[in-house]
Amino acid sequence: MEISGLAPVPAESLEQLRRVSTATLATVLYKLGFRNRALTDVHPIVPNSRMVGEAVTIRYIPIREDVDTPELLANPDYPHRKVFDTISAGQVLVLDGRGDIRAALLGDILAMRLKQRGAAGVVTDGAVRDGTGIRQVGLPCYARGEHPNATFHLHHAADVNIPIACADVAVYPGDIVVGDGDGVVVIPRHLTAEVAKSALEQEELEAFILEKISGGAPLAGTYPAGEATRAEYQRWRQTRR
Amino acid sequence: MEISGLAPVPAESLEQLRRVSTATLATVLYKLGFRNRALTDVHPIVPNSRMVGEAVTIRYIPIREDVDTPELLANPDYPHRKVFDTISAGQVLVLDGRGDIRAALLGDILAMRLKQRGAAGVVTDGAVRDGTGIRQVGLPCYARGEHPNATFHLHHAADVNIPIACADVAVYPGDIVVGDGDGVVVIPRHLTAEVAKSALEQEELEAFILEKISGGAPLAGTYPAGEATRAEYQRWRQTRR
Amino acid sequence: MEISGLAPVPAESLEQLRRVSTATLATVLYKLGFRNRALTDVHPIVPNSRMVGEAVTIRYIPIREDVDTPELLANPDYPHRKVFDTISAGQVLVLDGRGDIRAALLGDILAMRLKQRGAAGVVTDGAVRDGTGIRQVGLPCYARGEHPNATFHLHHAADVNIPIACADVAVYPGDIVVGDGDGVVVIPRHLTAEVAKSALEQEELEAFILEKISGGAPLAGTYPAGEATRAEYQRWRQTRR
Amino acid sequence: MEISGLAPVPAESLEQLRRVSTATLATVLYKLGFRNRALTDVHPIVPNSRMVGEAVTIRYIPIREDVDTPELLANPDYPHRKVFDTISAGQVLVLDGRGDIRAALLGDILAMRLKQRGAAGVVTDGAVRDGTGIRQVGLPCYARGEHPNATFHLHHAADVNIPIACADVAVYPGDIVVGDGDGVVVIPRHLTAEVAKSALEQEELEAFILEKISGGAPLAGTYPAGEATRAEYQRWRQTRR
Amino acid sequence: MEISGLAPVPAESLEQLRRVSTATLATVLYKLGFRNRALTDVHPIVPNSRMVGEAVTIRYIPIREDVDTPELLANPDYPHRKVFDTISAGQVLVLDGRGDIRAALLGDILAMRLKQRGAAGVVTDGAVRDGTGIRQVGLPCYARGEHPNATFHLHHAADVNIPIACADVAVYPGDIVVGDGDGVVVIPRHLTAEVAKSALEQEELEAFILEKISGGAPLAGTYPAGEATRAEYQRWRQTRR
Amino acid sequence: MEISGLAPVPAESLEQLRRVSTATLATVLYKLGFRNRALTDVHPIVPNSRMVGEAVTIRYIPIREDVDTPELLANPDYPHRKVFDTISAGQVLVLDGRGDIRAALLGDILAMRLKQRGAAGVVTDGAVRDGTGIRQVGLPCYARGEHPNATFHLHHAADVNIPIACADVAVYPGDIVVGDGDGVVVIPRHLTAEVAKSALEQEELEAFILEKISGGAPLAGTYPAGEATRAEYQRWRQTRR
Repeated sequence: MEISGLAPVPAESLEQLRRVSTATLATVLYKLGFRNRALTDVHPIVPNSRMVGEAVTIRYIPIREDVDTPELLANPDYPHRKVFDTISAGQVLVLDGRGDIRAALLGDILAMRLKQRGAAGVVTDGAVRDGTGIRQVGLPCYARGEHPNATFHLHHAADVNIPIACADVAVYPGDIVVGDGDGVVVIPRHLTAEVAKSALEQEELEAFILEKISGGAPLAGTYPAGEATRAEYQRWRQTRR
Repeated sequence: MEISGLAPVPAESLEQLRRVSTATLATVLYKLGFRNRALTDVHPIVPNSRMVGEAVTIRYIPIREDVDTPELLANPDYPHRKVFDTISAGQVLVLDGRGDIRAALLGDILAMRLKQRGAAGVVTDGAVRDGTGIRQVGLPCYARGEHPNATFHLHHAADVNIPIACADVAVYPGDIVVGDGDGVVVIPRHLTAEVAKSALEQEELEAFILEKISGGAPLAGTYPAGEATRAEYQRWRQTRR
Repeated sequence: MEISGLAPVPAESLEQLRRVSTATLATVLYKLGFRNRALTDVHPIVPNSRMVGEAVTIRYIPIREDVDTPELLANPDYPHRKVFDTISAGQVLVLDGRGDIRAALLGDILAMRLKQRGAAGVVTDGAVRDGTGIRQVGLPCYARGEHPNATFHLHHAADVNIPIACADVAVYPGDIVVGDGDGVVVIPRHLTAEVAKSALEQEELEAFILEKISGGAPLAGTYPAGEATRAEYQRWRQTRR
Repeated sequence: MEISGLAPVPAESLEQLRRVSTATLATVLYKLGFRNRALTDVHPIVPNSRMVGEAVTIRYIPIREDVDTPELLANPDYPHRKVFDTISAGQVLVLDGRGDIRAALLGDILAMRLKQRGAAGVVTDGAVRDGTGIRQVGLPCYARGEHPNATFHLHHAADVNIPIACADVAVYPGDIVVGDGDGVVVIPRHLTAEVAKSALEQEELEAFILEKISGGAPLAGTYPAGEATRAEYQRWRQTRR
Repeated sequence: MEISGLAPVPAESLEQLRRVSTATLATVLYKLGFRNRALTDVHPIVPNSRMVGEAVTIRYIPIREDVDTPELLANPDYPHRKVFDTISAGQVLVLDGRGDIRAALLGDILAMRLKQRGAAGVVTDGAVRDGTGIRQVGLPCYARGEHPNATFHLHHAADVNIPIACADVAVYPGDIVVGDGDGVVVIPRHLTAEVAKSALEQEELEAFILEKISGGAPLAGTYPAGEATRAEYQRWRQTRR
Repeated sequence: MEISGLAPVPAESLEQLRRVSTATLATVLYKLGFRNRALTDVHPIVPNSRMVGEAVTIRYIPIREDVDTPELLANPDYPHRKVFDTISAGQVLVLDGRGDIRAALLGDILAMRLKQRGAAGVVTDGAVRDGTGIRQVGLPCYARGEHPNATFHLHHAADVNIPIACADVAVYPGDIVVGDGDGVVVIPRHLTAEVAKSALEQEELEAFILEKISGGAPLAGTYPAGEATRAEYQRWRQTRR
């Protein structure tokens, strides 16, 4: 599913993002002036997931009984069907569920379809169902909760690939979405290369710091790294290469 | 602000809606199969308001620091400015604020602009500010709360006249929005005439019932009206005309 | 509506309770070992209300579509009708609405019926509707919110006069319910005389203390009253009689 | 514990329900007009549980200090003891804890007693404690949270086998309660056979659809199943038998 | 009550702050880089209040039964008494109640004592009681709710004049607290003069803009003020002096 | 980190506390008159943790942009650094995060530092990050949630070792903090020996009761233990020694 008007993101940057944590990304983005790029109260449904991909967005509003008829789901152009059939490899589907967990936005069948399409993962501030099945599918999946109810109990798919809110964070189509055990961070697309590079450096520095701290070093001077620690880090880094 | 593709609503229906309560409308809509047409936890900011008009919708998402710059508000095409300058007489502006009350979506200046344009009122599940000023302007206004912070602390206007969620209710552009002391009800546009007529009848019946009850009648047989009460109501109704 | 098995409450005690505040009652009950006798987040719908009466309780559960049919309300034995037709003078109807404000438990017609029956007031941790109408009826009314939706959108009346929860407080049929501008306190029936007497004394003492403080006395020694203040109070009290 | 006045449920239906998911049941019930039969925010405490049984209900209200004395628990007729000693094999105990998680409604000892009685499981919208112990007991258990506090910190058992609210769902004694990894669904007793049969069919169809989707089929035409898919399913189904 | 180590605030700045709204102050502070200086969900208890003063802070934690004995309140050094007896004229008492509204932090007697001391007002993210009495006292008072329970039901006063959280905003002793109908804004003390001056200018500009808008001007070019509007404003401003 | 003015706690009592559950402790404390000593909605981040230690407290307030500069973390006296470098073996760090989970109060590096210092564990009503890393460190850790954001997004460390609120419980420096799979209980320091002894006895009695119940005994007479059960327990206990 091509998102129109997007500049390409370097494949190398996506590769780098696979090696950094969402915690590091949140900090790097904060230093660039972004205070609110990590989703709140959204959890991994599939343990030990790592996810990196380009955001495809879909937005849901509450149902209205005369619009949300049983026929709707059979319409191949209904966004809640079409987006799953047209998403591209490497993309992450982000669903704006208004934080409402009283019905699921997807289950094992839709997760399987995403996987077949090569999607990198799926994220929502709503609920999912068939959690056991989703874990069998193995697609990285982040949600606020799990609920037996189907989407049509509560949610109407309104549109695709417009900017949305998800768990209190603005998500624009094409943003780069990264997930790990802590949750999900959304990187403004045009900053991907810069953020990935800084994050990787930060990650390496923190690996060094963690090694120092686990060796008994105090935080003072070490975390954040003072001059001596930074110098030592530079030497350590060169040895490692 | 013309909303494209809408069938006209009879002026008589709007007139009838001015004489019925949101409580009656919620019941009439329920009987037609609509369970969720009344906004929850949205209150009148201006006491003794009565409001009827056609919905113009605007949707907000969380801010992103590189998008929401000080220049944005000066752009006459930014929806958070443009919609206030182009709304038409008799329309109600409905703002999807995601239920977040940590910043206001409008204050006295924007309320005054709406009034100058002849808008029938304004409704949000977010907050407003300058409450005292808004009451002086006198435009019917419904919100979840009041907060000193300005819109740009929290909210980015994303688009205009697409279907939105407001206080857990789906609002489509062109829907008819009615407000009174209890809150706000949203009528699917194509049902306006039918709903208005039924509501007016229901309202008259309830006026009769209230008169009966205040005269000492029991609920049993009276509310809901049994056969005898309905017959008596028909006679009472003819006398009144 | 007689509540079986209740010992009478002295009329004098009810009279005393009309002269004390819920704040004083909450403190008196606390000193007797009761920590949780005041409803939280329940507000007066009718300004300047004062209410004292015996609790009649009614409990609601969520609707189930095959049980909650349109015919139910026409059944004179359905508790949501019967209790309003059989409540006695001086009783307070307390409705357990599970704190859910997405539909109203009563409006102006039911409030009028309660008034006609001589009820002392009505209290719920759910919502009401027709607030303007209820204020015209003038019956003391306490609720968590206001909402246009009718009861049958959400609530099924399950039973009458069993112990209930209301706003996180246990209410037993026959308990004495007192309301003022701060909210509502529920007194265990068997303690009414003791509580009323202590509260009235406490109220008088606090009137004296307020007079002292407004005259410039410090809190130290005055509130709580030290020995000197208590002695002075005894003299003041004798003068007033 | 016999629940009076209940028609029997076919053993075959209960058997069928053991083979369907709560997700499928929520959908089948929705198609029959029931919108709210799945508990919200209630989670399995014991992983990989599957539970089917008849609801025995118990209702709790907040404590009152003069009623909830230490002696109460030693009274064998106190519902919080009696129901655990009298529940029958195959029943599910459903506890209305008003959604309050600040104290546990049961721990390992009560769970063990339920298991000894042959109960099929236990469900509450409150909390449990001794989670590790409950997992060792191995009884299916669903709750909103876990908390070290005992029941008597917060909850008074008021009555047994009356209709209750649990996690925003009406539960009538004798309803059939089904639990799996997604949560809990409550089936109106008189519909058990019809629901079980439809659910099993739906489950088989979805197994086929999942197989198709995992083989690369698009959602369009497959989910929901179009004519061709349904025909193919009928052939597939016959082969499998 | 002198707060040690504070630089003086110009009396003229306090005077200016009496003429500006909290809405304007929130915007001025935002432009200076402060995103979170306005209290959320804290409301005026006394209508038409205006309040400006220096913050004295008091912090409450939950009670512990062996610490919070009846004797505590009689101890003149207990912060919940002492601060009311020692606050100085022009100061605003800000109480950190952790957002918990299940008990009141003050009632009419403590409000009267504050008034006698010349305090400028009182602000809490907890509850108050004796609302009617507080309105008679007439001291500006802002709170999250009203509740009959006394402080000792829930809150222990831990310390005075340390930095606190109030309604999600950091409040340092000596900060300048401003309240109006919208709520409360807290100005970092060292910025008072700068903020007051900017706010007054902003307020005058907005008065001019409101006049323009009420005369029919569009937002475009007017709000925010474009070059022409700014020039016109300068002329208007000179005429007014 | 020595906490001044504390009486020693018997090592034997700490040893006993390692063998009792938080559920038992909550009950023992309740019987001593303490109703609120167990944290609500705080969960183990590291599975199968058991934790006993003396509370070191740290309190956070919301950030203020001019105070919370990048330099702050490099200051070795900033409490959010210093407390981690000075905590002593056997202590538990308790962080008052005001229940706000929108940023983490610690991650793997700070957890590692605590472990190096010999801390017994860490507890917060806020969030943590690097959950996977924390589990690798293996330090007992209890929190309300997990979030990628760093502390400086939201929290400013205000002070160390003053009484705090954590998850609605008062925690005094030096209190004994116990954690297991159910959550966390805080014992007033001066009661440690008494509580530990009673809890151990209670734990043994409950082990006996659980054995009885798992052997088919009814609750009546067994739980709570009646006279016969208590006698049998005494015999059982002697055999076991």
